[in-house]
Amino acid sequence: MEKMWANSGDSHFLEPLDLWQQILPPDLAERMPRSEIKGDEEIVYVDGTSFSRKLPQFLLKKDKERGRETIAEMSYRPPGSRDLQARLADLDEEGIWAEVVYPSLGLWNPLIKDPDLVKVACQAENEWVASEVQGVAPDRLVPTAQLPLLTMEHALAELEHVANIGLHAVCLPSGLPSYIDDYHMDSCEPIWSLAEEAGIVITFHIGSDGEVIDTIAYRGPGGAILNYVETSYGGQRCAMKMVASGALDRHPGLKVLVSEGGATWVPFLGDRMNEAYRQHGMFVKPKLSAPPKEILFRQVYASFQHDESAPATNWAMGYQNVMWGSDYPHIEGTFGHTQKTLHELFDDVAPDVRERITRGAFKELFPHVSDPPGA
Amino acid sequence: MEKMWANSGDSHFLEPLDLWQQILPPDLAERMPRSEIKGDEEIVYVDGTSFSRKLPQFLLKKDKERGRETIAEMSYRPPGSRDLQARLADLDEEGIWAEVVYPSLGLWNPLIKDPDLVKVACQAENEWVASEVQGVAPDRLVPTAQLPLLTMEHALAELEHVANIGLHAVCLPSGLPSYIDDYHMDSCEPIWSLAEEAGIVITFHIGSDGEVIDTIAYRGPGGAILNYVETSYGGQRCAMKMVASGALDRHPGLKVLVSEGGATWVPFLGDRMNEAYRQHGMFVKPKLSAPPKEILFRQVYASFQHDESAPATNWAMGYQNVMWGSDYPHIEGTFGHTQKTLHELFDDVAPDVRERITRGAFKELFPHVSDPPGA
Repeated sequence: MEKMWANSGDSHFLEPLDLWQQILPPDLAERMPRSEIKGDEEIVYVDGTSFSRKLPQFLLKKDKERGRETIAEMSYRPPGSRDLQARLADLDEEGIWAEVVYPSLGLWNPLIKDPDLVKVACQAENEWVASEVQGVAPDRLVPTAQLPLLTMEHALAELEHVANIGLHAVCLPSGLPSYIDDYHMDSCEPIWSLAEEAGIVITFHIGSDGEVIDTIAYRGPGGAILNYVETSYGGQRCAMKMVASGALDRHPGLKVLVSEGGATWVPFLGDRMNEAYRQHGMFVKPKLSAPPKEILFRQVYASFQHDESAPATNWAMGYQNVMWGSDYPHIEGTFGHTQKTLHELFDDVAPDVRERITRGAFKELFPHVSDPPGA
Repeated sequence: MEKMWANSGDSHFLEPLDLWQQILPPDLAERMPRSEIKGDEEIVYVDGTSFSRKLPQFLLKKDKERGRETIAEMSYRPPGSRDLQARLADLDEEGIWAEVVYPSLGLWNPLIKDPDLVKVACQAENEWVASEVQGVAPDRLVPTAQLPLLTMEHALAELEHVANIGLHAVCLPSGLPSYIDDYHMDSCEPIWSLAEEAGIVITFHIGSDGEVIDTIAYRGPGGAILNYVETSYGGQRCAMKMVASGALDRHPGLKVLVSEGGATWVPFLGDRMNEAYRQHGMFVKPKLSAPPKEILFRQVYASFQHDESAPATNWAMGYQNVMWGSDYPHIEGTFGHTQKTLHELFDDVAPDVRERITRGAFKELFPHVSDPPGA
């Protein structure tokens, strides 16, 4: 079987457990969130206070067949989840060349209420990923930065910092708490302007809703499947907010990546938005310079792992920004069977379509990455 | 332009305003819900009590360009929305042959708390649609029945009644209030058994969430588009509950139609469910006799109006149960431009695919309908 190299629009890195101690002054490190799991509750300590929250069942359940690991433990089993040299060896073995790398501590951000603490922590972690992740293989690893969203002033300053230290993407949560203006509101405009100007890609990873309480969580028969699919919708909502609000229309150079949520939803969403835009036209504002689907297809990229319908989204439905993703090292991903998956997906697909989905769309977002051996 | 005939998996009929007075004894008719609109609130009177609820903005807003009608008024402007002879004339003119017809008073059902009142009302309205809608053109009009869901005993008795009076489909709400077991729960099993045995199709019309409070309603830029797309997700959830819970696997003869929500979501959902089923396999129960996508593709049908990606869902992604729908007489539908829409959708599509989407899938669900002229 010929080795098929692919770039990945979706992967994860687990920071050292003592990251805050490493990169923040002791008095600030002490204030950062940490958590303990007790029974089915997580006790979160943050900035001198603590609270408990119920954890989703699937995070706590042990794998009954194996009898030992939770889903979180299984997801970080590969040594490459924490060790970048082991990671690069895994990537070479799997046939993954460049990858978008999400930090795993990302969910701490919405827990902090002090804008100044979030600001300093984002700044420090972004510098850390720039040197410790991107720095290890700048032509292959594209870590995503985080922004302190509690004040627009801090968010903009950090976005500028992110550009200055040479990062290429910033990840925003797929759902925002109610005290932050949502992505379709005009108040977000300065972020879109600056990201466009600085050439920073906006990424949304599905399921990164932070403290947003998801009112829809299923128990009972089929619950594991239902909850898994449900997490996809947050990413779709981010994309449609950016299109429907006119943000992407006003900033044609701004590009958005929705990671891990599949790609076949994009034509679905585009057609739905077009129908609303046309049939409910009398109620729609702002008006856009092109149908919403055209803007969505032009500026939104979407990554999938195994979805067998995803390639046809490109060749049969005209959506060019379908992008493959490994989700390394998570168990939803392809680690251990990447070559099998790539061959199943692409053996019967035209070479230009395969090239576009496995590498071309990625290189359009991140032209600085190099090419895999033989390409 | 050659006339293209299509069956429609989605249309609506508006009952007479005094329906309850016509079909129920006066003391029961008096207890049925009625509503008045005051400002941006609706006052609902039901069974001796009343409450007010905020109406979605788009239902209240006048069309600014036309300066006179709300979206609800526009949606029922065609005389055929209330008058079946006018309707058949419209259908002939538009090129629509057979259609699934949803009653418009459907949303009254979850407002009533007295199980006996719901039972009598469902029984009476189902008999009315059997004689007054289906009876007018039994080979073309397929009205959907309603079930009294407050007790399983009543629901089953009415489902049997529905079959006995010759109706072919029952519509269930796309979202259920918390005091009724959701569709993935085992307690729904007797409904699925009886529907399969009686050959009754289960239909879900998107946006029929009744009293379920949707926590996600958008205001601000793009709101009209965002809210429109959001209503689609309820139908997807119904389909995935029926698959993930094993209901469709246990009842391979049971067929489900999701109306008005598009069709391109089906391969998306199938691939997501397969990924969950395989990658999170250790947490999934029940196990199914086939991958969830196969069951979804086999037993779930989905109707769309304008979605240009929908035909490729059939020929490029292998989903055979894509079904066209007119949404007559609503403004989201094709009334006034049906032929234009059908030709845009299907002129470049292979004849067998066109036949399947415009008529074949419908006839598989409802083999008793006749064929259009010349077919």
